[in-house]
Amino acid sequence: MAQKSLLASRKFIKPSFSYLVEKKRDGGEFSEEEIRYIVDSILDKEMPEFQMAALAMAIFFQGMSAQETATFAEEMMLSGEVIDLSKLAKPKIAKYSTGGVGDKTTLVLAPLAAASGVIMPCMNGVDENFVISTLDKLSAIPKIELDADLKDFVKQLTDVNCAIIQQHPEIAPVDGILYELRQNTATIPSLPLITGSVLAKKLSEGAEGLVIDVKWGNGSYIKDVEQAKQLARSITRVGRSMKRRCVALVTDMNQPLGDCVGTGLEIQEAIQLLKGEGPEDLQELVLKLGMEIVRLAGVAGSTLSAKQTVQRHLKDGSALEKFKEMVAAQGGDTSYIDDPEKFPKAKYIRKLPAPKRGYVHTINAGMIARGVQMLASNKKGKLDPAVGVSEIKKVGTQVKQGEPLMMIHYNDEAKLDGALEYLRSAYRLAPKRPNPPDLVVERVA
Amino acid sequence: MAQKSLLASRKFIKPSFSYLVEKKRDGGEFSEEEIRYIVDSILDKEMPEFQMAALAMAIFFQGMSAQETATFAEEMMLSGEVIDLSKLAKPKIAKYSTGGVGDKTTLVLAPLAAASGVIMPCMNGVDENFVISTLDKLSAIPKIELDADLKDFVKQLTDVNCAIIQQHPEIAPVDGILYELRQNTATIPSLPLITGSVLAKKLSEGAEGLVIDVKWGNGSYIKDVEQAKQLARSITRVGRSMKRRCVALVTDMNQPLGDCVGTGLEIQEAIQLLKGEGPEDLQELVLKLGMEIVRLAGVAGSTLSAKQTVQRHLKDGSALEKFKEMVAAQGGDTSYIDDPEKFPKAKYIRKLPAPKRGYVHTINAGMIARGVQMLASNKKGKLDPAVGVSEIKKVGTQVKQGEPLMMIHYNDEAKLDGALEYLRSAYRLAPKRPNPPDLVVERVA
Repeated sequence: MAQKSLLASRKFIKPSFSYLVEKKRDGGEFSEEEIRYIVDSILDKEMPEFQMAALAMAIFFQGMSAQETATFAEEMMLSGEVIDLSKLAKPKIAKYSTGGVGDKTTLVLAPLAAASGVIMPCMNGVDENFVISTLDKLSAIPKIELDADLKDFVKQLTDVNCAIIQQHPEIAPVDGILYELRQNTATIPSLPLITGSVLAKKLSEGAEGLVIDVKWGNGSYIKDVEQAKQLARSITRVGRSMKRRCVALVTDMNQPLGDCVGTGLEIQEAIQLLKGEGPEDLQELVLKLGMEIVRLAGVAGSTLSAKQTVQRHLKDGSALEKFKEMVAAQGGDTSYIDDPEKFPKAKYIRKLPAPKRGYVHTINAGMIARGVQMLASNKKGKLDPAVGVSEIKKVGTQVKQGEPLMMIHYNDEAKLDGALEYLRSAYRLAPKRPNPPDLVVERVA
Repeated sequence: MAQKSLLASRKFIKPSFSYLVEKKRDGGEFSEEEIRYIVDSILDKEMPEFQMAALAMAIFFQGMSAQETATFAEEMMLSGEVIDLSKLAKPKIAKYSTGGVGDKTTLVLAPLAAASGVIMPCMNGVDENFVISTLDKLSAIPKIELDADLKDFVKQLTDVNCAIIQQHPEIAPVDGILYELRQNTATIPSLPLITGSVLAKKLSEGAEGLVIDVKWGNGSYIKDVEQAKQLARSITRVGRSMKRRCVALVTDMNQPLGDCVGTGLEIQEAIQLLKGEGPEDLQELVLKLGMEIVRLAGVAGSTLSAKQTVQRHLKDGSALEKFKEMVAAQGGDTSYIDDPEKFPKAKYIRKLPAPKRGYVHTINAGMIARGVQMLASNKKGKLDPAVGVSEIKKVGTQVKQGEPLMMIHYNDEAKLDGALEYLRSAYRLAPKRPNPPDLVVERVA
């Protein structure tokens, strides 16, 4: 009898949803059972959306502890399929970026990691607002398939060691439900909710470790560097408490990365980077993130050996070879990689002239992205792979009046004026050379 | 043309609901148009419940200004029928109480006001949780009808000058929708939302002024005296900005009001009060609130004349006569008022014995209400009018061991043990006489 009542006292009594909302409203900390119950109830559609919304807003204001967030991420992960790569002997590392304008690093890092002996699964979502996603960029390669099922994804990771596909609906489905709700209830920017969402998705992909690129600036949804640092700390801390190795870099997104923005142009820039060439800022970011990946994976012990590993696989063509293997495995036409001249050219190319002489003082990357988005979108919302901007003059560059700030590639003259407004307003010129921004602001491990 | 574009520039562009949630989340102040749009969208069921919930929680954390709250109350009022009593020459005053255990004052004040030349419309809701509502108490009078339609309500106000009926669904319907949502999303205790709800409902009933009784203590949903003062200030300030005269008293609810709790017993106590008799605390509260009513109505100029007006109408039987008129107009059997001995008696009456000698130090009024609720509820949730507690020993009373703390009237022996647990735990005895609580803590005008 005594034993029976002990068991009974351990049994979790389901609380009402409004009690749970009230508890968080008043700053209470959820138990593991409570979080499991919340996630299960969202999955089973038992928790009404209005109570989910009230709860999300209460979390926005009151936060969640690292322990709560870890349980939340774990339970969201377990709400769907969790890919098991444990049979593969090589280390598995995932990469996550909060998204930025002109960022092609995932296209480079996945094959670079694979070439270095690291398995890198990449499921990507559609990025926020104005940012062109990695998936959009890959789509510029004819015939490439991005909607693999989970079996094919695992097969490709086994054979090629890297794959970039779109977010699969069976991965962390509760995150999918919650994310849509959060978009409509102004509860996206909550540190614990972002942290839980990222970890639930990324760790479902079978990775043992995670390298995170948190971008701050006018081209990121995180405008404040302190917020970016907090998010980096939150994800790494919670990831560690879930027993995964995590490292985060907080990086600059106050100007586009690289020299061009636009799907076809960016693929071509990624190919340059895979050859160890291309714009300096991107080369540096690929190197820094690549070093984190190989160190976290344990394939390089020291900083020096990590640097050498990354540089070797770019120089010797093995990263580029892996990229071709990956594209081929996903049905894409690799002849475009061998001969980037095959990518379609825009009908018109014109310069954006500097309105006066001076130094490029600031660039609003978000404005450039919006200009390109406007110029490249067709009626179905698809992006024209020939359209974009190139030869972007970066912060600190000196220009004469009339000299190009960038070259604009476009096919539809009717869209030019609208796009020009965005592109022009993105630039501020000043008589004095500004201090160049730090590409990597902080490393959190 | 110039005029046309001026008009166009004045046109309100409907924002997205998630923009509105975000604005409040970040502490923004809504414009009149925005509040009107929100209230209209709730009425038309165009705003999804999950966005209403997120908005309510954002308001819980960020509040609303007096101006926003006034517009909110006004728009909620205009979302339904607004009773027009302007053809009646007499002043119209409403009374609102946050609800308390053993409170019979509305039953006394409505006929007292009418006897004093003041029209008092009373629509009441079901009270929170454990509190027995004024409607439940009135229901102890056989045949009384509480669901009058608006036409009959106005007719009774014209003929008798007072009426107590249940909240009509056509009064402030948006408040009804929002209130139900708030109950399920832990957003009831928000000062501006309570303020808007009270004013929208009460001012829809046709009153020009409002006397408010905000109760604080263990028998109120407001446990903290400072919160009660804030609510009193909020309602009066917002009411004034809506051009209505408002006065609020913050009163004690740390023990039951009067000597008994239970529907039939409370009606009998109300009849005593209408004769100028009954427990001291209730006599004092009736006097204080009654004086506010006649002064706010302008039928008495000075404090002294207000006091005399109230006392005269209790002593001369005119308030009791009005009560009978009101009950008769609503179909109730007035013979019960003439001869309260007709109210049904409980099968059993037993004492709650004091466990030791000492002074009554504190009484948890909420516990007493729960005990009575348990004892009096039948399976349909209706309250047995014969059941309740009487002769409640109040705070400061000296008792000997075994002496009754109260008398318990009950019909169902099976419920006694459960109820006794609540009733016993409501009392704390101490060897020293405590300071008696102040009945009226603050007056806000």
